[in-house]
Amino acid sequence: MAEISLDRHEAAPGVGQLDTILPRIAEEVSGLTGQGRVADYIPALARVPAERFALSVNPLHSEPVHVGDHDTTFSIQSISKVFTLTLALQRFEGDLWARIGREPSGDPFNSLVQLEHEEGIPRNPFINAGAIVVADLLLTCLEDPLHELVTMVSKLAGSKIVVDGEVALSEAETGYRNRSLAHLMKGFGNITHDPQDVLDVYFAQCSLAMTSDQLARALGYLANDGVDPASGERVLEVSQARRVNALMLTCGTYDAAGEFAFRVGIPCKSGVGGGVVGIVPHHLTACAWSPGLDATGNSVKGRAALEHLVTETGLSVF
Amino acid sequence: MAEISLDRHEAAPGVGQLDTILPRIAEEVSGLTGQGRVADYIPALARVPAERFALSVNPLHSEPVHVGDHDTTFSIQSISKVFTLTLALQRFEGDLWARIGREPSGDPFNSLVQLEHEEGIPRNPFINAGAIVVADLLLTCLEDPLHELVTMVSKLAGSKIVVDGEVALSEAETGYRNRSLAHLMKGFGNITHDPQDVLDVYFAQCSLAMTSDQLARALGYLANDGVDPASGERVLEVSQARRVNALMLTCGTYDAAGEFAFRVGIPCKSGVGGGVVGIVPHHLTACAWSPGLDATGNSVKGRAALEHLVTETGLSVF
Amino acid sequence: MAEISLDRHEAAPGVGQLDTILPRIAEEVSGLTGQGRVADYIPALARVPAERFALSVNPLHSEPVHVGDHDTTFSIQSISKVFTLTLALQRFEGDLWARIGREPSGDPFNSLVQLEHEEGIPRNPFINAGAIVVADLLLTCLEDPLHELVTMVSKLAGSKIVVDGEVALSEAETGYRNRSLAHLMKGFGNITHDPQDVLDVYFAQCSLAMTSDQLARALGYLANDGVDPASGERVLEVSQARRVNALMLTCGTYDAAGEFAFRVGIPCKSGVGGGVVGIVPHHLTACAWSPGLDATGNSVKGRAALEHLVTETGLSVF
Amino acid sequence: MAEISLDRHEAAPGVGQLDTILPRIAEEVSGLTGQGRVADYIPALARVPAERFALSVNPLHSEPVHVGDHDTTFSIQSISKVFTLTLALQRFEGDLWARIGREPSGDPFNSLVQLEHEEGIPRNPFINAGAIVVADLLLTCLEDPLHELVTMVSKLAGSKIVVDGEVALSEAETGYRNRSLAHLMKGFGNITHDPQDVLDVYFAQCSLAMTSDQLARALGYLANDGVDPASGERVLEVSQARRVNALMLTCGTYDAAGEFAFRVGIPCKSGVGGGVVGIVPHHLTACAWSPGLDATGNSVKGRAALEHLVTETGLSVF
Repeated sequence: MAEISLDRHEAAPGVGQLDTILPRIAEEVSGLTGQGRVADYIPALARVPAERFALSVNPLHSEPVHVGDHDTTFSIQSISKVFTLTLALQRFEGDLWARIGREPSGDPFNSLVQLEHEEGIPRNPFINAGAIVVADLLLTCLEDPLHELVTMVSKLAGSKIVVDGEVALSEAETGYRNRSLAHLMKGFGNITHDPQDVLDVYFAQCSLAMTSDQLARALGYLANDGVDPASGERVLEVSQARRVNALMLTCGTYDAAGEFAFRVGIPCKSGVGGGVVGIVPHHLTACAWSPGLDATGNSVKGRAALEHLVTETGLSVF
Repeated sequence: MAEISLDRHEAAPGVGQLDTILPRIAEEVSGLTGQGRVADYIPALARVPAERFALSVNPLHSEPVHVGDHDTTFSIQSISKVFTLTLALQRFEGDLWARIGREPSGDPFNSLVQLEHEEGIPRNPFINAGAIVVADLLLTCLEDPLHELVTMVSKLAGSKIVVDGEVALSEAETGYRNRSLAHLMKGFGNITHDPQDVLDVYFAQCSLAMTSDQLARALGYLANDGVDPASGERVLEVSQARRVNALMLTCGTYDAAGEFAFRVGIPCKSGVGGGVVGIVPHHLTACAWSPGLDATGNSVKGRAALEHLVTETGLSVF
Repeated sequence: MAEISLDRHEAAPGVGQLDTILPRIAEEVSGLTGQGRVADYIPALARVPAERFALSVNPLHSEPVHVGDHDTTFSIQSISKVFTLTLALQRFEGDLWARIGREPSGDPFNSLVQLEHEEGIPRNPFINAGAIVVADLLLTCLEDPLHELVTMVSKLAGSKIVVDGEVALSEAETGYRNRSLAHLMKGFGNITHDPQDVLDVYFAQCSLAMTSDQLARALGYLANDGVDPASGERVLEVSQARRVNALMLTCGTYDAAGEFAFRVGIPCKSGVGGGVVGIVPHHLTACAWSPGLDATGNSVKGRAALEHLVTETGLSVF
Repeated sequence: MAEISLDRHEAAPGVGQLDTILPRIAEEVSGLTGQGRVADYIPALARVPAERFALSVNPLHSEPVHVGDHDTTFSIQSISKVFTLTLALQRFEGDLWARIGREPSGDPFNSLVQLEHEEGIPRNPFINAGAIVVADLLLTCLEDPLHELVTMVSKLAGSKIVVDGEVALSEAETGYRNRSLAHLMKGFGNITHDPQDVLDVYFAQCSLAMTSDQLARALGYLANDGVDPASGERVLEVSQARRVNALMLTCGTYDAAGEFAFRVGIPCKSGVGGGVVGIVPHHLTACAWSPGLDATGNSVKGRAALEHLVTETGLSVF
């Protein structure tokens, strides 16, 4: 590969104005209060006030900036799929992509239809079925996947992260559809461990509790060609980091991935806890949080905040 | 919006080495000869020799570079959907996005299934059904859509472009599935003109004959925030250009869009004539051509060439 | 085959009481007035008063009985599919069943989904796609299919039957979905003639205007092992007649075939003009008519009338 | 209802010749040896020799007749769904049909697709999902459903029937797809008990071991308007018995129900153990057995035997 030190790696001018941009965004999205609906399938999620909002931005070459409830922990839910995929890319020695596809699903996020048509191979690692296969891979290559995951995320976030036990228990109690997915894939031979063990990992990873500051910091390696900006340690190879970003852009926000790419224009990953993370390669990472969700399961204010951020800084990848 | 003049707009170092990179790519992809299958549903496509190959790169800030059959015309087929969408964004005054979605299809490129489930609204403008609706919109806002299209593309390409009459006729004779799509959408009320008139436009646009040099040049506006680099004239608004790029990345290469984003990492649009165009925003546009197609309908050598180009120059959007 | 002259061929006792049963049925179904919705996709159907009702019963071994508007003609619509299938079984010399399946569709009656999955082979001859293939077969084996059809039906009905020109014209003007089906199957190679010619036959057959008396009489051969009871002429082989009955039972009433079999328990075929015919093998044929349709496209009163008829006479095939 | 004592209740002439018909059928189907494939997903099924064959006929008004391995037990598998449905119709006091549909599935027998589209309501009681809901209903209305089932079937069969413990264990060990179905429906709220308890009933019922003689005798009530011919006791109401027959005809043989109705022409229910039962209302019941299955999961020789039986006796319901 030709040696390149792209000047685009320098800070972009818009980044210097984040201190004034973020409060403006907070004010604009406050107009959306009342529009979303908090996930209510488990009590611990249902009781989070819908109006909460945070936006944390972590530039590669300047100080972190934030606004709102940036030090309140929330359930990261599907955002955890980025971390487990990262762990699997680091540690699983077989061919991960023989067991999980890389295409957008074109269907609601937990559909079983596609699994039947493609004989138990989930369409991508960010739909539930795909993340369950990733959990199965982690059980193959790691003694204690949950411990390794928490260790990795804590290190990346710069502080001790924990699983919210109440959430994990509730997930396990209500997760019939995920059980259905796991058993279906087991029937197709694409789950190698006991489905219950796999689901234990999956329900726990979804229950990690983090703040928007922590998430924005923890994902810095995806904006930095695979190297954690805080520690300087390599987390993923350059090409792996780029590919995780590509997957986030095409598959990271349930059935609204096209809409996110169209309006927000950067790789994003959302969770039903109301978090949305976004990556601007070579510039910054961001995490918005607000529990009110739209019909596609994405945070109403979170999406709007990231769209404003991109517009105000001019930092679309396109 | 904060005023920004990103230094990333400067030439990237890898771009300066294109003269040596392109011949290397040509040599590497020559190893793939024999792997693809030339589209054979019409004679004019079937008789193009499978081993033909061209790669043209049009950097924003330096001279165009090319290798192979760069001055041979080929049928641009679905790549034309980028031009008709551009024309519709310029000229259609109603809400284009009320009649066409923006999500990846998750299904083979000409599937009718999705149209039934979503009552005649195509999932995006780059599947056949979506492009047929775009043609219908053009008939609403333009006296002679085909003439306007040819005029626009000729101007962007810097030379007179023509419709290959033999191809257009063959398309019309064999296009039963596209007729099926048009009538189905007419039944849902999402085609306002006579389906035959709409299909006349569609079959003709697919039959535009261009060289890889012409295509790479003609799409310069998508790398340049909407402004044609050659003439300095604005073709699309900044946000429109970015959004076309986003649609290309998520929906531009049939059912392999996720795979392209994962491996190539830049917005691309392919056609069954063997052409593939790629956009590196703020840096360059490229067009690879080779008629042998893989199972997803994408050029085998074309995809490989763009993947090598991105790897060698380090110019992924991620 | 063992020689059998089943005593079940004798009249069943319930049949002797039809004179008192029919008025009772008419009274009972009058309570359903106002429940159905008249098909309104073409004006000629839309203006038929919803409260009209007729029931005609044609026993094999006694005089016909009727009640209500039994000499009012209505558009037989999909009931015509029984006659065209009969004609194709008589006259098409190739393997009809290589081009049309024999399974219930499990989907709304004009779905394109199944056609895509099974490469243009319609699931059975009573969904629109299947009837369009039957029309294509008739064009292969007959000089003038429509003339032959009208001749056959007129002879079976005992009086001159005509195509309602206004209905046929309206069908042709609005039949985009059927055009879509025809072109899709043409693309798969399962339509051999010009789709327009095939649809001309199809739209005309749907526009046959008949009374319930005529329909009940015309279908006598299906209750009589293939022999027209009026003329004594063989219309179909014994096994063919039985198989048409089987197809009517499993596929004759759109997506409600299971419900009809469950509640009515005899082979039936319905049309959106409000007609429903029923066959009790070796006993009688019946035709109920009332234009108000339920959500599955079946006549509300028509279905109720046949259900009552079977209950009152005890003549279920089960 | 009009009082009727149909003379069709008398023996049909063909029935008197069963002694000569059955050996002829056995000889004819022996030509099919080698065509089917024995179910091999569990060892106990896989080791049954493919060439085994039995045919037992139980006329209402004459002595039972049989040929071949008529006193060899085999795993009745899905044929058990007729018995559990019967038990639920007898004992469940709520609205069974609010939780299970009555339409053919139009899809392979254990598809999850339909369940998603119809929110957890299985399309009919004879697909796996439907039978699992029936098992759930039995847990609601019975203290010990398996005991009641075995008691009922033993009484109807005239001898003690048992669950094959090895088969039941193997079913439980390999039944991931059925687990997936149960959890999916639990997620939709259409399973009220613990999925594991429901599946215990389901796996056990599939593992009932019976001979063809026993099955033909046990189902006599379905040919006799709901009354067990041996004991004279009512098992189901007349209308219930007819409706079970209707369901068998439209939904009893997986995705080949239309084909069975077309070729065999009587209500049938098959199992992957190679058994197929058929009902000729008012005349006889039959059970054919041969472990070699066709691509639709139906016994090759079993289907052929029933088709011959109907042809030779002239006893189609059509």
